[in-house]
Amino acid sequence: MATEVYIAGVGMTKFGKSTASLPELMVEAASRAIGDARIHTIDYVCIGVMNAEEFTGDSNIAALIADRLGLSGVPSSRVETASSTGSAVFESAFYAVASGYHKNVLIIAGEKMTHLPTARTTKILAEVIEQTERNHGASMPALAAMIAQKYQHEAKLSAEKMQGVLAKVAIKNHYNGSLNPYAQFRKLVSEEDYFGSKWVSFPLRTYDCAPITDGAVAVVLTAEKKLIRVSGLGHATDTLAVRHRDSFTSFRSTRLAALQAYHMARVNPKDISLAEVHDAFTPFEIIGIEDLGFFPPKQGWKAVEEGITSIKGRLPINPSGGLKARGHPVGASGLAQIAEVVWQLRNELDSLRQVKGARIGLTQNIGGLANNNLVTILERTDFYRPVPVYWQPPFNAGNSETREVSDQPPSSNSGILETFTTLYTTPEGVPSPLTLGFVRTDDHKMILARGRQEKLEIGQRVELEKESNLYYFRTDSPPGAAQKRTGNWLSRVWTPSDPKEEKS
Amino acid sequence: MATEVYIAGVGMTKFGKSTASLPELMVEAASRAIGDARIHTIDYVCIGVMNAEEFTGDSNIAALIADRLGLSGVPSSRVETASSTGSAVFESAFYAVASGYHKNVLIIAGEKMTHLPTARTTKILAEVIEQTERNHGASMPALAAMIAQKYQHEAKLSAEKMQGVLAKVAIKNHYNGSLNPYAQFRKLVSEEDYFGSKWVSFPLRTYDCAPITDGAVAVVLTAEKKLIRVSGLGHATDTLAVRHRDSFTSFRSTRLAALQAYHMARVNPKDISLAEVHDAFTPFEIIGIEDLGFFPPKQGWKAVEEGITSIKGRLPINPSGGLKARGHPVGASGLAQIAEVVWQLRNELDSLRQVKGARIGLTQNIGGLANNNLVTILERTDFYRPVPVYWQPPFNAGNSETREVSDQPPSSNSGILETFTTLYTTPEGVPSPLTLGFVRTDDHKMILARGRQEKLEIGQRVELEKESNLYYFRTDSPPGAAQKRTGNWLSRVWTPSDPKEEKS
Repeated sequence: MATEVYIAGVGMTKFGKSTASLPELMVEAASRAIGDARIHTIDYVCIGVMNAEEFTGDSNIAALIADRLGLSGVPSSRVETASSTGSAVFESAFYAVASGYHKNVLIIAGEKMTHLPTARTTKILAEVIEQTERNHGASMPALAAMIAQKYQHEAKLSAEKMQGVLAKVAIKNHYNGSLNPYAQFRKLVSEEDYFGSKWVSFPLRTYDCAPITDGAVAVVLTAEKKLIRVSGLGHATDTLAVRHRDSFTSFRSTRLAALQAYHMARVNPKDISLAEVHDAFTPFEIIGIEDLGFFPPKQGWKAVEEGITSIKGRLPINPSGGLKARGHPVGASGLAQIAEVVWQLRNELDSLRQVKGARIGLTQNIGGLANNNLVTILERTDFYRPVPVYWQPPFNAGNSETREVSDQPPSSNSGILETFTTLYTTPEGVPSPLTLGFVRTDDHKMILARGRQEKLEIGQRVELEKESNLYYFRTDSPPGAAQKRTGNWLSRVWTPSDPKEEKS
Repeated sequence: MATEVYIAGVGMTKFGKSTASLPELMVEAASRAIGDARIHTIDYVCIGVMNAEEFTGDSNIAALIADRLGLSGVPSSRVETASSTGSAVFESAFYAVASGYHKNVLIIAGEKMTHLPTARTTKILAEVIEQTERNHGASMPALAAMIAQKYQHEAKLSAEKMQGVLAKVAIKNHYNGSLNPYAQFRKLVSEEDYFGSKWVSFPLRTYDCAPITDGAVAVVLTAEKKLIRVSGLGHATDTLAVRHRDSFTSFRSTRLAALQAYHMARVNPKDISLAEVHDAFTPFEIIGIEDLGFFPPKQGWKAVEEGITSIKGRLPINPSGGLKARGHPVGASGLAQIAEVVWQLRNELDSLRQVKGARIGLTQNIGGLANNNLVTILERTDFYRPVPVYWQPPFNAGNSETREVSDQPPSSNSGILETFTTLYTTPEGVPSPLTLGFVRTDDHKMILARGRQEKLEIGQRVELEKESNLYYFRTDSPPGAAQKRTGNWLSRVWTPSDPKEEKS
């Protein structure tokens, strides 16, 4: 039997823009967690940071942080899984305690991002995207926007309804953030603010996207019995390329990770008192609460509308403010979710912010574009809970088998537009705005292609063309277009202000 | 009780310059290890890579590799501890199995380095060095050279003797490498080759330094009983700055890690049949075999001279060729050491290369400039070994307590030259050659300073001067020198071809 693992202490820095260096932020969070834990013997240090190499030039960070903490001598390792690093380092530390080889493990996760120009930060973040999709100009917001667009279509919502739902997620999380002293944003956001904010990638606005943030979080795990126990862990990957997946609007990595975590904890979604869900983009919160089994597929938006997920609702989601309002220092967010759940379960927050009677809490953390996700379940150890010997999976996680995906070029040049977006802040070297769409060709290949800015609809027929390794799609082929294609048609894609284009 | 952990399979790519990408190398190594293991169900993937971000621009690599292996769905995490990454990822995977939560874990460690210009690679590698020391122009070879110089002094060896010993390490490891089909270098190196090779940083020559290498290694761990068991693990950090340490010529991180590993395995240094020791620089092999307790302090060089460490000697060290000849893809080397020990213990190598009757093998892997080291002990499970209940530490690992180190400026401007080197290939922006020395000031501060190229001796008195955040030392202060100091003296440091300088 594995050793049970408890949480002895948590601590975090205020999230936001900071003048402190990454090691300084990490040391501050660690000092708070060690103080909170009242444990001063650390056997092992686990560091989580997504990309210190490129963000800050800090290499060899595991040894560096141990040294800064005055813990040189103590073993220290760094763990990374893109934006789910905070949960992955928690998982590694969990195994170290559960194995019986370490008693007290200090976990520190952090990221320092605000000091770089936004374009540079966005570029570093985009390196998690699969190469072909990145080459077409897909950024994280562009992919998230196409997923939102597809969700709207599948949930049969009008564009206005969808916007209203996304606004509600943003407004709720900003309200929660306004109550959280650690949050980057503590201002309330109104519908007016939301609808007045700029398009990032249609249909996502500024208020649909988590900000760029500095911050660090620390947790002390221990084999000694404490109030909060780690009762469930789940971790699953998915294909790097979004086009290789079965679905745009549900993340297999979340579903698999959730099933593992529920199984290990022997609980079901209905037993969860509150959850921190990875809302890097507002639609991901809605997809998350469906994938976690809290609400049926394509019904999560209703829960948001009905206030079920608000802090005083039946199932509070992101009582901390989430990535949206607390901020998103990429490698730290997963551990910040865990810290929030610990505080909530300990019942030690201000009454406005406290979820009443919380006993079991869950976090869901997305790595990359949902291809390395983790789910963590924590619970209070001071209440009786019957643990079923035969636990029934609460939902079907879908195909968990290996799938063969092929990047062979399609043999057909036409197909169906599966989803699309127009990205306004494009990667370096890509003209703005950029229209992107996933096209399912008639021979069942999924292709990401650039399009032109025009009225598009999911499900409409398009034609594909390939030029210098990039695919382009267009919705119509008027007679004689064949002659105009080369050069002319392609170049027109990039000149949305072309007067002929505007007239059409 | 923790679950016992066994090695089911190992595999590696040929080390050297490769046209394959990092993911391709990793997939090749993984396929071989899975084939060797005859286990096709993988529960968890652990990826080790030191700096894919800067070497190859691969981010989100844990999910990427799982995807490439057709294992999308399976959890995957990446672990990093600079150049000991290969052993650290092995340690993390070990805990995952030992905890009972995973049965079969696939570990893959790799690095792709040769495609970049050497200056860029050296710069990325130097990021592991503490900031102040790096600012003075210290590279990894420069620090290793100062350690070698100090060793020579403490072991009371003549310069010729020291060179002869280092040559013997290089020649031995190249001989071993010539027998290893996976090694980067398979040519024998003669004394003539060695002494004909260029100075990198005095007293280290090209043949004292491990090369730049591409390669990947994979290991499958399992909870099912197999021939080879993981019986000991140790891991310890040290201060990032070399000047903050008690000793230049012994690595506390190795000593602490070795004691932990011996304790866990309940063995002593005399029980080890063979060892793979981190010979990124030849003097590190000599220091390593002393720190591991194989030979008394400052006596390791004798063992090399007497042939004890050669492949047919009493205690073969680096039968694979070591980092020196097998090559050093930084994040992979630790796992390559483990693969070699597995092959040796299985007794399945060609007779020239096979260590006869090997039962217990050890690896020692250095992270950074010896500030994140790991020791791993593997053994055959098919022989009887009495396991002592009361295990006695075979040596004193030294002070494992936290030490307070201060970077307050010294109040004295003079002191003793502790060790020095002249570096010939200097970091970008630093004129070449560059003389560096560690100076212990009269108020007991240790300072890294630049000097001028001249006849220097350990223990001689020097004076320190600080200019724009850099320290400079000089050995004499002739009358009237005070006036010449500013500008003139400092600038002369950088003009070794200055005729006045050469005459003196």
